[in-house]
Amino acid sequence: MSPGAGRTGRRPGSEDTRGRILDAARAAFGERGYDGVSIRQIAADAGVDPALVHHYFGTKQRLFVAATRFPFDPREAIAGLVADGPPDRLGERFVRFVIALWDRPDVRPTVTGVVRSATTDPGAAAMARRLLAEGPLLALTTLIRLPDAELRAALASSQLMGIAFARYVLAVEPLASISPDELGAAVGPVVQRYLTGDLGLPAGDPRG
Amino acid sequence: MSPGAGRTGRRPGSEDTRGRILDAARAAFGERGYDGVSIRQIAADAGVDPALVHHYFGTKQRLFVAATRFPFDPREAIAGLVADGPPDRLGERFVRFVIALWDRPDVRPTVTGVVRSATTDPGAAAMARRLLAEGPLLALTTLIRLPDAELRAALASSQLMGIAFARYVLAVEPLASISPDELGAAVGPVVQRYLTGDLGLPAGDPRG
Repeated sequence: MSPGAGRTGRRPGSEDTRGRILDAARAAFGERGYDGVSIRQIAADAGVDPALVHHYFGTKQRLFVAATRFPFDPREAIAGLVADGPPDRLGERFVRFVIALWDRPDVRPTVTGVVRSATTDPGAAAMARRLLAEGPLLALTTLIRLPDAELRAALASSQLMGIAFARYVLAVEPLASISPDELGAAVGPVVQRYLTGDLGLPAGDPRG
Repeated sequence: MSPGAGRTGRRPGSEDTRGRILDAARAAFGERGYDGVSIRQIAADAGVDPALVHHYFGTKQRLFVAATRFPFDPREAIAGLVADGPPDRLGERFVRFVIALWDRPDVRPTVTGVVRSATTDPGAAAMARRLLAEGPLLALTTLIRLPDAELRAALASSQLMGIAFARYVLAVEPLASISPDELGAAVGPVVQRYLTGDLGLPAGDPRG
């Protein structure tokens, strides 16, 4: 499974074990949420001793953080998206990029895992809140330098979270099966509005 | 608590007990989600015997359905919203109405309860899916008679679910504390787009 196995002299067996635990954790959190899984079950799914899971990751909380990490640096990806086309189509590029990412079989369990866990576990909720309130979208709205950067990021996040919820967790049709390009066309202008549009707030009442 | 208690001869005590169980169920589902509560705990919170909960509601699933029912007929409310102003501001009226409703202390636990339960319990997910795929918003988009009625309803639902998630479950600021009017101004045009706008889908590819 691991293309790098045996390629170097650096204990490939350990890397494999760590990766197997992460894969099992991702699948388990994705399916049942933070509260619904135990380290013992994840160890069983990965075919290792529970003590090894503790050895590599410490607590269940730390394992969750490691399992739900993005497979790339989101800030770099965002800088690329900003540079990659006209500013008034940024929302569309952003939505296409995010949906194509979330649709990936290796990323989807992370998305459902974060959504499922954040609704019931306070630790996971705090993490999701940080991701939304201080994550890539705030970096983007801060870069854009309009008023209400925090509200803009939170509104855009709310739309993307709602899509994640409807498409991956509930599988509401036809939203669950339309393509990233179609979602980009339908939802992109919404994210564009939140990023750069007039939000209709009373003047002199800046937020964020 | 119950303004009707003692007003009629129809066993007010029973009505009180039923109402107390529903209140306790609403609070419990709202806080911990479907999987996180038992009939025994709800009975204890309501100060009644678990057998009485079974007597009034049968299963936990049926108790959940009863506890998360809207306190009015949503179809009537929607007809009122449609009639109550210009068609191009319908989205704004809709968002204001929904947020003012969800903000109510007696309704908020229902909203968080449905969101929390739908992420982990298949029965609650099926109910949420039905509510979203066949609920008030589909009645509205069907009434509007544009193509893609089902996709339009699902997209509008996804935005409202995302708001529910960010505002009530995660409490992301400043989204958690702005007013229904401010949310109506910021999010209303988005719902308007989904209801009546050009979704940018390829022509000749009708959905829904």
